[in-house]
Amino acid sequence: MAKTRFKGVLVPAITPFDDRLEVDVPLFVKTCKWLLAQGANGLAVFGTTSEANSMSIPERKRALEALVAAGIDPAVLLPGTGQCSLPDAVDLTKHAVSLGCGGVLMLPPFYYKPVSVDGLEAFYSEVIERVGSADLGLWLYHIPQMTGVAIPYDLIERLIRRYPDTVLGIKDSSGDWPNTEGMLTRFPGFGIFPSSEGVLVKAMRLGAAGCITASGNINAAGIRSLVDHWQAPDADERQKPVAAVRDLFSKFPLIPAAKAVLATKLGQPGLAKVRPPLSQLTAEQTADLLAKLEGAGHAFKPAAF
Amino acid sequence: MAKTRFKGVLVPAITPFDDRLEVDVPLFVKTCKWLLAQGANGLAVFGTTSEANSMSIPERKRALEALVAAGIDPAVLLPGTGQCSLPDAVDLTKHAVSLGCGGVLMLPPFYYKPVSVDGLEAFYSEVIERVGSADLGLWLYHIPQMTGVAIPYDLIERLIRRYPDTVLGIKDSSGDWPNTEGMLTRFPGFGIFPSSEGVLVKAMRLGAAGCITASGNINAAGIRSLVDHWQAPDADERQKPVAAVRDLFSKFPLIPAAKAVLATKLGQPGLAKVRPPLSQLTAEQTADLLAKLEGAGHAFKPAAF
Repeated sequence: MAKTRFKGVLVPAITPFDDRLEVDVPLFVKTCKWLLAQGANGLAVFGTTSEANSMSIPERKRALEALVAAGIDPAVLLPGTGQCSLPDAVDLTKHAVSLGCGGVLMLPPFYYKPVSVDGLEAFYSEVIERVGSADLGLWLYHIPQMTGVAIPYDLIERLIRRYPDTVLGIKDSSGDWPNTEGMLTRFPGFGIFPSSEGVLVKAMRLGAAGCITASGNINAAGIRSLVDHWQAPDADERQKPVAAVRDLFSKFPLIPAAKAVLATKLGQPGLAKVRPPLSQLTAEQTADLLAKLEGAGHAFKPAAF
Repeated sequence: MAKTRFKGVLVPAITPFDDRLEVDVPLFVKTCKWLLAQGANGLAVFGTTSEANSMSIPERKRALEALVAAGIDPAVLLPGTGQCSLPDAVDLTKHAVSLGCGGVLMLPPFYYKPVSVDGLEAFYSEVIERVGSADLGLWLYHIPQMTGVAIPYDLIERLIRRYPDTVLGIKDSSGDWPNTEGMLTRFPGFGIFPSSEGVLVKAMRLGAAGCITASGNINAAGIRSLVDHWQAPDADERQKPVAAVRDLFSKFPLIPAAKAVLATKLGQPGLAKVRPPLSQLTAEQTADLLAKLEGAGHAFKPAAF
């Protein structure tokens, strides 16, 4: 199974929960297919927005297997497999590779801090060695506001040097443009994904691979169109409405907000549920967000759900 | 099985790893028995110092079962069972209760942030309801420098009000004395454990239950003696040498330092191993630490290992 050099807009698909807060696997499969129909180039399932860190390992495996069994090409899947513990990260990564996933998106171990670059290099290296597969494509995941553990340039450089055919890219969710810009300058050819479509055109001009963005859940069609036209003469004009949707969306807590919008728009009230410690959007917040989206001219691509 | 109202010095026992970084269960059992022989009143196994967050759930269960099978009274055990995900926290907590453990020490879910007090209350409540056992004694675990998720007074108050027979105490590892002092004042009768023996006497005078401390791994005997004499006329004098050992010890990274000291003193070089992302103490650091401990008059209680 060839690994994928991911490009374009990847969506960290939300994970639906039922009334007992169990993973609603059939609804998850349906949501993922619909996101691909909206135009997502790939699905970064089990990311932060997916509440993956509120799920157990067996739950994540079962849901991933269901996607593949339902006919989604595993080459478009970039599941999150980062865990605090080495055996867990190895376990999830092996499982993803065995299913033929195009790659994995891997958080650093995020409990202990501070940790040294040596310690992080040892962790990622151990995972790669223990998985021991030429089919593994690994994307690093930099999201210090959640993990408290950054992925510095030095670590990226060491890992690329050591595993050039395995460590293929990074998702930079810091929201810190100078950091993204520095990565793009330092690591040409590395698959760099900022986490906001608000900077998509300028990032792609510097060589970014695309974006992996929470708001892809609600605006995959709009973002995909921008991805497809970033070299068009009117790309800067096209950037504006996409950035505007992102801007107003990001005034709300992203995960409950993405779920609330899909719940309403797809007529699936259960989609709004989140697991604790997160809290569902209130009815007032949801109405406010929907009105603002409408005001910004936001629309889904017509597609059956 | 009655739950335990823990008192005194509880040690977050280190977890030994073998050459392949697998949990060395026989050595773990031996270390735990030795810590009890040193004078520990109980063992807060699978805490931060135990590298529990670098272990998988099956590893933690197996190691806990081995302690009980080896004849350690489960009533003295306070295993860590906090996890980012609700099903994992429920799973580990049920397992600990089923083994008859005196209580569990529970981190808040520590990936998502910021989270609301409502969200944290929902998480702890769901765990308690799903475990659904009158035998559950739950200690909260406040260690914001690792988790990024604090346990505010408001949350403690809500949980005590809602589950007075279940939520029995807290380990305050913030190292922030005003926070500890505030808890002791606000919640009389609650089982409050600061994480440093350096404040033991003053904390016990305000009603603390004892301390749960990383350096208990290397100075359980000294701390136990202080616990047993905190009301003695010379308690302030007794506090000084115990605090001095803690002070010099805490200049080193606590987990590798505890392991390095035990590895040398117990003649078990393997005990020094840590899992990534942590890094082992260097030979120079180890020699420096051992010399300083000797200079401070540190000694183990004679006990077979």
